[in-house]
Amino acid sequence: MAIRSQDIPVAPQEASVTCGAIPGSQKRYEAGQLFPDLQVPYREIAQTPTRKRDGEFQPNPPIPVYDASGPYTDSGVDIRIEKGLSSHRWNWTWTLPDGLVLDMEPASAYGRIRENDPATTSIRFQRRAAIRRATPGGNVTQMHAARFGIITPEMEYVAIRENQSLGRLRETHPELFGAHAGQAFGASIPGRITPEFVRDEIARGRAIIPANINHPELEPMIIGRNFLVKINANIGNSAVTSSIAEEVEKMVWAIRWGADTVMDLSTGKHIHETREWILRNSPVPIGTVPIYQALEKVDGRAEELTWELFRDTLIEQAEQGVDYFTIHAGVLLRYVPLTARRLTGIVSRGGSILAKWCLAHHQENFLYTHFEEICEIMKTYDVSFSLGDGLRPGSLADANDEAQFAELHTLGELTRTAWKHDVQVMIEGPGHVPMQRIQENMAEELDHCHEAPFYTLGPLTTDIAPGYDHVTSAIGAAQIGWYGTAMLCYVTPKEHLGLPDRNDVREGVMAYKIAAHAADLAKGFPGAQVRDNALSRARFEFRWEDQFHLGLDPEKARAYHDETLPQEGAKLAHFCSMCGPHFCSMKISQDLQQYAEVEQGLKEKSEDFRRLGKNIYLRQ
Amino acid sequence: MAIRSQDIPVAPQEASVTCGAIPGSQKRYEAGQLFPDLQVPYREIAQTPTRKRDGEFQPNPPIPVYDASGPYTDSGVDIRIEKGLSSHRWNWTWTLPDGLVLDMEPASAYGRIRENDPATTSIRFQRRAAIRRATPGGNVTQMHAARFGIITPEMEYVAIRENQSLGRLRETHPELFGAHAGQAFGASIPGRITPEFVRDEIARGRAIIPANINHPELEPMIIGRNFLVKINANIGNSAVTSSIAEEVEKMVWAIRWGADTVMDLSTGKHIHETREWILRNSPVPIGTVPIYQALEKVDGRAEELTWELFRDTLIEQAEQGVDYFTIHAGVLLRYVPLTARRLTGIVSRGGSILAKWCLAHHQENFLYTHFEEICEIMKTYDVSFSLGDGLRPGSLADANDEAQFAELHTLGELTRTAWKHDVQVMIEGPGHVPMQRIQENMAEELDHCHEAPFYTLGPLTTDIAPGYDHVTSAIGAAQIGWYGTAMLCYVTPKEHLGLPDRNDVREGVMAYKIAAHAADLAKGFPGAQVRDNALSRARFEFRWEDQFHLGLDPEKARAYHDETLPQEGAKLAHFCSMCGPHFCSMKISQDLQQYAEVEQGLKEKSEDFRRLGKNIYLRQ
Repeated sequence: MAIRSQDIPVAPQEASVTCGAIPGSQKRYEAGQLFPDLQVPYREIAQTPTRKRDGEFQPNPPIPVYDASGPYTDSGVDIRIEKGLSSHRWNWTWTLPDGLVLDMEPASAYGRIRENDPATTSIRFQRRAAIRRATPGGNVTQMHAARFGIITPEMEYVAIRENQSLGRLRETHPELFGAHAGQAFGASIPGRITPEFVRDEIARGRAIIPANINHPELEPMIIGRNFLVKINANIGNSAVTSSIAEEVEKMVWAIRWGADTVMDLSTGKHIHETREWILRNSPVPIGTVPIYQALEKVDGRAEELTWELFRDTLIEQAEQGVDYFTIHAGVLLRYVPLTARRLTGIVSRGGSILAKWCLAHHQENFLYTHFEEICEIMKTYDVSFSLGDGLRPGSLADANDEAQFAELHTLGELTRTAWKHDVQVMIEGPGHVPMQRIQENMAEELDHCHEAPFYTLGPLTTDIAPGYDHVTSAIGAAQIGWYGTAMLCYVTPKEHLGLPDRNDVREGVMAYKIAAHAADLAKGFPGAQVRDNALSRARFEFRWEDQFHLGLDPEKARAYHDETLPQEGAKLAHFCSMCGPHFCSMKISQDLQQYAEVEQGLKEKSEDFRRLGKNIYLRQ
Repeated sequence: MAIRSQDIPVAPQEASVTCGAIPGSQKRYEAGQLFPDLQVPYREIAQTPTRKRDGEFQPNPPIPVYDASGPYTDSGVDIRIEKGLSSHRWNWTWTLPDGLVLDMEPASAYGRIRENDPATTSIRFQRRAAIRRATPGGNVTQMHAARFGIITPEMEYVAIRENQSLGRLRETHPELFGAHAGQAFGASIPGRITPEFVRDEIARGRAIIPANINHPELEPMIIGRNFLVKINANIGNSAVTSSIAEEVEKMVWAIRWGADTVMDLSTGKHIHETREWILRNSPVPIGTVPIYQALEKVDGRAEELTWELFRDTLIEQAEQGVDYFTIHAGVLLRYVPLTARRLTGIVSRGGSILAKWCLAHHQENFLYTHFEEICEIMKTYDVSFSLGDGLRPGSLADANDEAQFAELHTLGELTRTAWKHDVQVMIEGPGHVPMQRIQENMAEELDHCHEAPFYTLGPLTTDIAPGYDHVTSAIGAAQIGWYGTAMLCYVTPKEHLGLPDRNDVREGVMAYKIAAHAADLAKGFPGAQVRDNALSRARFEFRWEDQFHLGLDPEKARAYHDETLPQEGAKLAHFCSMCGPHFCSMKISQDLQQYAEVEQGLKEKSEDFRRLGKNIYLRQ
């Protein structure tokens, strides 16, 4: 592939990504017990003390929260994207059931060409380590280990992470644990996540840890319906050439606000190189849709795609360290005509590419016919399947139709095949679905895909809000998360209209953090309500700084507050600009608590009197 | 009350509010059948034709949509806010069961003072007509008429409005009516809303038409769970003096984006005058919380409130034309101690004012003890009750607690009392409630408040997202709307932090239009999916202009699209910036439809052959 020099993007110079602590927070780490080398990150949000009525100060505990933002928010870490993050996973010692091969040479033909292309030397990330792969016929997946009864470091890592909001608070501050009972639709969430529970969930296929053995920079996380609901943000370069640092920054920016995984949907000439930069700097699992790159390799002509080309692309990306692949193997030839009478046909890019290939060749989808071979590749690197929903509905009218569910049932069949190989699987779903038909999606998935984790886009609950589809879809996402979806793929305000910019990414991630948290609360995930309780207490006590810091976006909360009351003194004020000092219900209510305490005192006194045979204090 | 001249806001000069048609739309009117004078507004969104593969153009029908924006979006109407809107309701002729009294003199002492205060002459709206009230002991409510078996012009008006998205499309374009069956949780929505159905729902108390007889500018609307879900936007002046035109503009702006009612929560010196301007220019029902103004009259000292002062305030506002009053009559003395151990006490301003009064006097809430007298005032003008939830939860921890439900049960008791007087009632609810406990709120309300319409704030489904609570609460609002809530009170991104600006109001209204529409779809409201289907078809056919215009916010949709592809030609392009021309799934899918048609042709041909005993076309 000829590359003209003007096409070559700019290589990153210095750290040009967003770094620094989240306001009011400090990065902390918790060591493992089975694996003392583990340094499991979390964020600790400091709180100011409560000023009591007697003028005394009562300290408030720091609140630990799950943190996907990686070392970028650790002010003690020197970030240099040209060096990448620490390969910490490679320091963890555990015995794989099967052995590893180390190789400096990529197994992918295309990978070798790119490694040796002088035209892209200037933008090539300098790999420091050998490529890892399983010994021939071997299997390095977390599921394989789990089924052998092995608890891996990744399993202990995610177990610690899932418990972080509990911290030691349950013992020291039980009052923060007031929580509503959850309603978990058949999920069975334990009171505390143990490594053994993680292992068991992975072994059953009910959860996955996407963790390619070639992604040593990863901070492992788990996706499953008995765990915290996760969110994914999509990034991708635009048609206009952008610098590689910009692409890395998109990932860093998305995880800063809380994305748990990132899908790199880049197209264009330098996706191989860009992906390498992203992976070497990513603490979160990276997912891709390999058919996009395969299509680039045949200049966009779907009918020219071949299994051999696709296979090489899988190996190319697996050896770079991609953690999960979207594979549209359920778009079967016989399902394509089912979409012809749809209102919006096929709206998945991958789905439409495969459908076109199937029709052009009048052959079965090659991803389906070669599925076991794909499994062989997946287990060589521990790449997880994200079985693509190529026939997801692009409008309410097409929701839950024959095409959609026919594909879903095939994904269930493929799940069984993948599990035969001990390959981890999640299932992609929704799109546009009206509220009253969302639960049916979850039920179908659990039933036909054997409880493999569900990973859904939205769903969007109306079609009529272009420009606001982060909201339209957060409504559906919160519901499907509650019903049992394990990961929610975000939607930005630009959905259907254009490419998201930084602000759109932030808005999209925030809407989905809210949806995921609402779902965690509804499921009754242990400790999920601690942060809400802490924030509400801060709100009631007019601890404005704490209210900002405990929120999902401290910067915006502060900025909004300061628009009306910018003075520093207002951060201590016992009112806000919404009602002003006279009308503040919180203030009046605080006074009432004082009243009530006096009341209570009087009542106790009167009861004392009554017990003594006197009743002069008794009210009529 | 002394008024210093520098406190007097600026009186409006010329029309200084946002006017003009919504892009791509035209205002239309539909006459009544029972009352031919009615001119029921709707908005008609034009569509461009579809270009078919043979190059022919196929026209697409204009899509009628419900429209609450009033004459401001009718380019044929000359808007002069100093004149107010047309008093069109006074042209409708119908016979009240009881008679009317016309009077130039306000019955409220405070109202008379304000009418005659020379200091505020410059900002006083010049009333043109006499104040109307029922004859002594009479009753002019819609409920009273309904129970007499009378269909009022307002009832036919709202019946026409509720059917607007059906238009004549059901006959001419049945393909737009593809819709999912609704799941309406005990609601019983007919296939077409008739005036008689409206009358029956009003008579039962299951719906209300807030329509003060002194608000002749009103375009009536209905609130009830067998009708379209409505949304309310709150406006209010800030502490900083703002001009009266600005206050009118806030209302105009909120209804432009779709608010069905507006609550004027203003505080400060000129609320009487400002309210007059708002009412005379408002086509939507205006709600207030009269206790706010009463509190102003006693300089913010809750304990100095008296029934006499409050009564005069009710009459003052009723004679201006306020359509519904929030009355916190359910905050009983014995419920106040129930809030003492709450995480966030009492967060309703009205609730905290009344609680303070109760405790200070150690007497029962005077709104409760004088409730029948309030009913007498309400029926004199047809002001509807919005029975306030003074004890709504301000945090998840306090949701569905004893205090909240105790008050709700009292509101049920008060509903019966109001209905005894044929006074219309809706019930205020939620606040902060986790998803799994939302439905319980609706069930309690239906059960204890005898199916009176529920009107809820949000609910917010998490406490941790200051700056994004329009999203947090839209999630809950969509759900509770689906379960049966009739009107959703919006929340803006500034909730908990500051006063909303124009953009916040727009974001809040949009989030709630989405929630309400999602609920209408889920309930299976007739015709609700027509607009979605039309927009999705436009999207699939790359009719970009139509996609913008059919959306809730055409301006933003266009702006977002144009950020990446500003060229006019791009509006005709068969792709967008998200995937570019090569990767466009919609485009590929359109090609597939063509393929599929060929396929179908082949199949039919082969079936012909088979029938003829030949099978050479049959695929293996």
